Amino acid sequence: MAGSTFGNIFKITTWGESHGKALGVVVDGCPSGINLCENDIQVFLDRRKPGQSAFSTKRNEADSVQILSGVFDGKTTGTPISLIVYNTDQHSKDYGNIATCYRPGHADYCFDEKYGFRDYRGGGRSSGRETIGRVAAGAIAAKVLSELGVTLTTYTRSIGDCVIDYNNFSKDEIMNNPLYMPDAVCAKKAAELLEKVMADNDSIGSSVECIIKGTPVGIGEPVFDKLDALLAQAIMSIGAVKAVEIGDGTAVSKMRGSENNDNFTAGSGNVTKLTNHSGGILGGISDGSDIRIRASFKPTPSIYKMQHTVNNAHENVDIEIKGRHDPIIGPRAVVVVESMCAITLLDLIIANASAKIDNLKKIYI
Amino acid sequence: MAGSTFGNIFKITTWGESHGKALGVVVDGCPSGINLCENDIQVFLDRRKPGQSAFSTKRNEADSVQILSGVFDGKTTGTPISLIVYNTDQHSKDYGNIATCYRPGHADYCFDEKYGFRDYRGGGRSSGRETIGRVAAGAIAAKVLSELGVTLTTYTRSIGDCVIDYNNFSKDEIMNNPLYMPDAVCAKKAAELLEKVMADNDSIGSSVECIIKGTPVGIGEPVFDKLDALLAQAIMSIGAVKAVEIGDGTAVSKMRGSENNDNFTAGSGNVTKLTNHSGGILGGISDGSDIRIRASFKPTPSIYKMQHTVNNAHENVDIEIKGRHDPIIGPRAVVVVESMCAITLLDLIIANASAKIDNLKKIYI
Amino acid sequence: MAGSTFGNIFKITTWGESHGKALGVVVDGCPSGINLCENDIQVFLDRRKPGQSAFSTKRNEADSVQILSGVFDGKTTGTPISLIVYNTDQHSKDYGNIATCYRPGHADYCFDEKYGFRDYRGGGRSSGRETIGRVAAGAIAAKVLSELGVTLTTYTRSIGDCVIDYNNFSKDEIMNNPLYMPDAVCAKKAAELLEKVMADNDSIGSSVECIIKGTPVGIGEPVFDKLDALLAQAIMSIGAVKAVEIGDGTAVSKMRGSENNDNFTAGSGNVTKLTNHSGGILGGISDGSDIRIRASFKPTPSIYKMQHTVNNAHENVDIEIKGRHDPIIGPRAVVVVESMCAITLLDLIIANASAKIDNLKKIYI
Amino acid sequence: MAGSTFGNIFKITTWGESHGKALGVVVDGCPSGINLCENDIQVFLDRRKPGQSAFSTKRNEADSVQILSGVFDGKTTGTPISLIVYNTDQHSKDYGNIATCYRPGHADYCFDEKYGFRDYRGGGRSSGRETIGRVAAGAIAAKVLSELGVTLTTYTRSIGDCVIDYNNFSKDEIMNNPLYMPDAVCAKKAAELLEKVMADNDSIGSSVECIIKGTPVGIGEPVFDKLDALLAQAIMSIGAVKAVEIGDGTAVSKMRGSENNDNFTAGSGNVTKLTNHSGGILGGISDGSDIRIRASFKPTPSIYKMQHTVNNAHENVDIEIKGRHDPIIGPRAVVVVESMCAITLLDLIIANASAKIDNLKKIYI
Repeated sequence: MAGSTFGNIFKITTWGESHGKALGVVVDGCPSGINLCENDIQVFLDRRKPGQSAFSTKRNEADSVQILSGVFDGKTTGTPISLIVYNTDQHSKDYGNIATCYRPGHADYCFDEKYGFRDYRGGGRSSGRETIGRVAAGAIAAKVLSELGVTLTTYTRSIGDCVIDYNNFSKDEIMNNPLYMPDAVCAKKAAELLEKVMADNDSIGSSVECIIKGTPVGIGEPVFDKLDALLAQAIMSIGAVKAVEIGDGTAVSKMRGSENNDNFTAGSGNVTKLTNHSGGILGGISDGSDIRIRASFKPTPSIYKMQHTVNNAHENVDIEIKGRHDPIIGPRAVVVVESMCAITLLDLIIANASAKIDNLKKIYI
Repeated sequence: MAGSTFGNIFKITTWGESHGKALGVVVDGCPSGINLCENDIQVFLDRRKPGQSAFSTKRNEADSVQILSGVFDGKTTGTPISLIVYNTDQHSKDYGNIATCYRPGHADYCFDEKYGFRDYRGGGRSSGRETIGRVAAGAIAAKVLSELGVTLTTYTRSIGDCVIDYNNFSKDEIMNNPLYMPDAVCAKKAAELLEKVMADNDSIGSSVECIIKGTPVGIGEPVFDKLDALLAQAIMSIGAVKAVEIGDGTAVSKMRGSENNDNFTAGSGNVTKLTNHSGGILGGISDGSDIRIRASFKPTPSIYKMQHTVNNAHENVDIEIKGRHDPIIGPRAVVVVESMCAITLLDLIIANASAKIDNLKKIYI
Repeated sequence: MAGSTFGNIFKITTWGESHGKALGVVVDGCPSGINLCENDIQVFLDRRKPGQSAFSTKRNEADSVQILSGVFDGKTTGTPISLIVYNTDQHSKDYGNIATCYRPGHADYCFDEKYGFRDYRGGGRSSGRETIGRVAAGAIAAKVLSELGVTLTTYTRSIGDCVIDYNNFSKDEIMNNPLYMPDAVCAKKAAELLEKVMADNDSIGSSVECIIKGTPVGIGEPVFDKLDALLAQAIMSIGAVKAVEIGDGTAVSKMRGSENNDNFTAGSGNVTKLTNHSGGILGGISDGSDIRIRASFKPTPSIYKMQHTVNNAHENVDIEIKGRHDPIIGPRAVVVVESMCAITLLDLIIANASAKIDNLKKIYI
Repeated sequence: MAGSTFGNIFKITTWGESHGKALGVVVDGCPSGINLCENDIQVFLDRRKPGQSAFSTKRNEADSVQILSGVFDGKTTGTPISLIVYNTDQHSKDYGNIATCYRPGHADYCFDEKYGFRDYRGGGRSSGRETIGRVAAGAIAAKVLSELGVTLTTYTRSIGDCVIDYNNFSKDEIMNNPLYMPDAVCAKKAAELLEKVMADNDSIGSSVECIIKGTPVGIGEPVFDKLDALLAQAIMSIGAVKAVEIGDGTAVSKMRGSENNDNFTAGSGNVTKLTNHSGGILGGISDGSDIRIRASFKPTPSIYKMQHTVNNAHENVDIEIKGRHDPIIGPRAVVVVESMCAITLLDLIIANASAKIDNLKKIYI
């Protein structure tokens, strides 16, 4: 089935394999009149680019984006924006040994059963490179959101046992360390941990958090298209994510109502909340406070240790994975999480434009 | 926007408010030839019916379902199945004091901002009664799944600090206690906790788990419509859910790759996994082992304690919520979680029918 | 597959069979704040009600509509509006002879092949009564459109060879004759023709036209969701329609460009067209002039003459159709055409609300 | 809104402007295991390529297609297939005079009103070149259909008053003349007519017909997603189409039921029809006989004559359109009609795979 499209009105369709000719995305439903150039997108892509630090794959891709349509005289025209990134550094031979074997923790076996065979080069469609299209589209969504006063901040919250201390939180620090952590002390400890993990030929899990400021009250649809529900789909659809939490997340299962409820208060006509356990969403609809969403990433399944598995003849075999891969997924996925949040939120902001007849009258009458 | 429809091919559309005339669902895209009678659906609805135990609201609703279309001679015809449940026990006056005030932890404020006003009776569309349509549709999905060899088991995993001990797990126990816990010892402790919570005029959080057996390998679409992504949307769209976890969930963020990877093994031609950290899903596609999904429910926001809030004139007020409400959400939501999992999985099983040309040839040639 | 839902944002889902308990529709995505009562819908339904004249079936249905959800204090709330019409006058026995035979011109054979069996009572889901849900939803769409200054006029344009003379066109006349023709002279001739057709135990074809005034310029999406493309789907999806024409329709195939092009002209800042061959749509987008759409209806396939056909054992048989049926489809379908046009246009007007960033800024900033 | 995607399961998303860098399409939901190479697609594209005859634009484009993803080892993998055609022969200056003026019969004015401005080069997104993506996708759909025994034949049926004589119908003739007519005599007359039209600096209308053989009985969904309804959307969404007819089309409005009904007959267990007025579709579902669909194309709106119009300051001006354009649209649109029919039909064949539980059991059990 078609599963490469996301969004109802601001709609993106991604395509491309790890070792194919190119990867890309078509962004349909972007409002016209947004200033947009390739560099707006490139800065997002550079945040996920490989080879940036000791902790990411040595694959050396420029990941240069080209805009092929939908922009004229430096502005979006309202028609579909097609973005392409050509693959350049493809070491296909590195992956030859996985053509017939199913790597533990990967989808190789599932693809073969589903489709009869698979493009085994570098994970094909299930490679992390699939996120290039998401991030390119996310850059556009974030640009539109910024016109409406909405901003997103995303960072690595934890790596293994190293969790940031919110008292040390510095937004500026995020771009200062290769792990995209907002706490310099924690980032240093995490780097040490990662060196040890790499020395062990192993990998480790992590978590990523996104904070969204400036969302108007009322965004999200009451039942299935709740803001948190679509954010959950968006984030869980990123490879390696195994949990999505909104606001206090799993902790709510142990809380009392008197503790978890956020009291409202009014001052100068503005309604605010005294606390924000809800993470900015009540009943699936934005309540005006910061939206807080957290993703848990599993450790990179590609490790250099010998593992037991089966091949496509369904025989038991041992496998040692070669090739280039990251010891951790979270840091490079920070911009992917931000992108998916931006796309989801923008689509629902657009959808909400017709929630009441007065909105339509503002436009048409 | 339209947000009351879920699913791509097996598609459900729910409607209805807590204190309107009725609630219901239209199930479109159900295959023809499934034996179906009202009792098949009623047994599911009875699992979420109010007034069943000391721990649920005193509201006394029969919640009797009628099939209005789509079934002929005891079988589904392939055309839309319309299901309706009339509201009977509506104490609208109980809720009069919330017409102008915004209840903490509820969506009252968000609805007023989004739509300009709201049906304030009993929460209107954001009431827990909205799930009647989901459960009625879920009963049908589960029936179709059972024809394909897929079964679901769902239960309350924890209430506050009382977490089930998997060594005591008994599937039969689930229907034996009013909390739908599979561990009798834990259920007893949880009941004691709940009594204390109620004596405090408070409420408490909980978690619910669903285990799905028998899913064919290959279900789920690689990118945005991953099986876990759509399950995440489905579960997060249930009111009060703040976290969704697949397999080991948030715990993966602290694990090593060598620990989290499930090794494959082959025996008599069958491929299985030695462990199941993945929760039955790899790269968004079912891997043939049990699917494990967990939801964290916040405590019921309606509590009998006095709370600070604002009214719709944006003035500070105090509110004491009257009316009938549960001290905990999880147990009555067990069948809602099961229903949403069944609907999501069935839709993707149907979608997968055209994954390879050989599947289509089996049908058409 | 799910095929009972129409529209992207203003989205309707219909359900129900000719001889089931009831028929209905769920309208999701209707803006809040529209005054709506059951009578607003009933006046539309009454236009398609059977038993109104000598030229329609004797089936005697009140077709009384009830609003079950989505309206509070006389206004739409923004949540799904569920509408139901109970069947009351079901002469199931009249249709007993078609349980095993395939009526020529009907979908009986197709349903049996597709689904394995069918609800044969009165055509089941493929009955003309299926349009009840469309018309009920159309009444709401027309109400919303009227708030935005858009109005629709629909009428029977021709019956057999009796075609209206546009020089005699009188909008007021439409509701004056049972054939809904805007030309009293033509209506009289058509009535005489119909009496002859009925005396012959036969039926006859017809055409219906809808004129939409007041559509803002710019409605419709450039490629697949063109205004005329979605109108074509909407109208062709009405049973018995075999052709859809926009503006000059099939006649354009014989015209010269110099004849078919409409020249623009400006006066007092307003842009208008000197002619309207385009029928108000250029490149799939409304151009501000009247939208003109025409549907050709085949003759009622149920006729009292003996016909050759096959049964469900695939044996040759003769069939004489009993029961109650109209000798002509167009007149009763006038309100169905109007409803489908209203639904389609409203959905695209809503969609267009985010075409440019300035529109969103009017709402959010 | 997003309007560049068509199809529910076999889903295509097109992008690109006449004078942008490239045009293309992403085909998602194509079953795996189909042999596919670039030449399969190129032969379709060559049928719509400009500069092929005296009767098409002099624009000289190679229109070479590249497959960027979704194919591995010569077979479709089940993941999205991205196809791209780079623009090479862009005479942007030819179109400079339309930057500020609204061409009669074109969507220039509508685009400016909708989006605030437009890519005016060569019609931008509303250019006939937009169909490149449709045709590239159509080639794939036709390939999949051929695996299921379904074939399509498409041709120009009429040009102005020159209508083919079905007694002279020769399938082989279609590719023999530059007008793609199946009747050599008619093609010759039409060519003479076109020369006269061109000498007059004018253009002319035409009609195109598609015949589909081998469709299984039962394809199409009963209500809104009827086979003919989706074909109508598909065909009407092609620029310049003003009418869509199925089977006898507009002629049914004058027919008697006894004349229009097709009688069924059985022989050796097979059900067939004695006539095919229905055009292979009853109640929106394929009946096993040939599907016949017809499109009426308006004359090319770009003509060399002086025309009255307005500019974007809403002042009256005269315009003479320069540049390269065809005197007729139908012949080059033959392959576009065929492509849209193939895409629509395949999507519904896939959708029908889950119509009955027995179909799913064939795949899963």
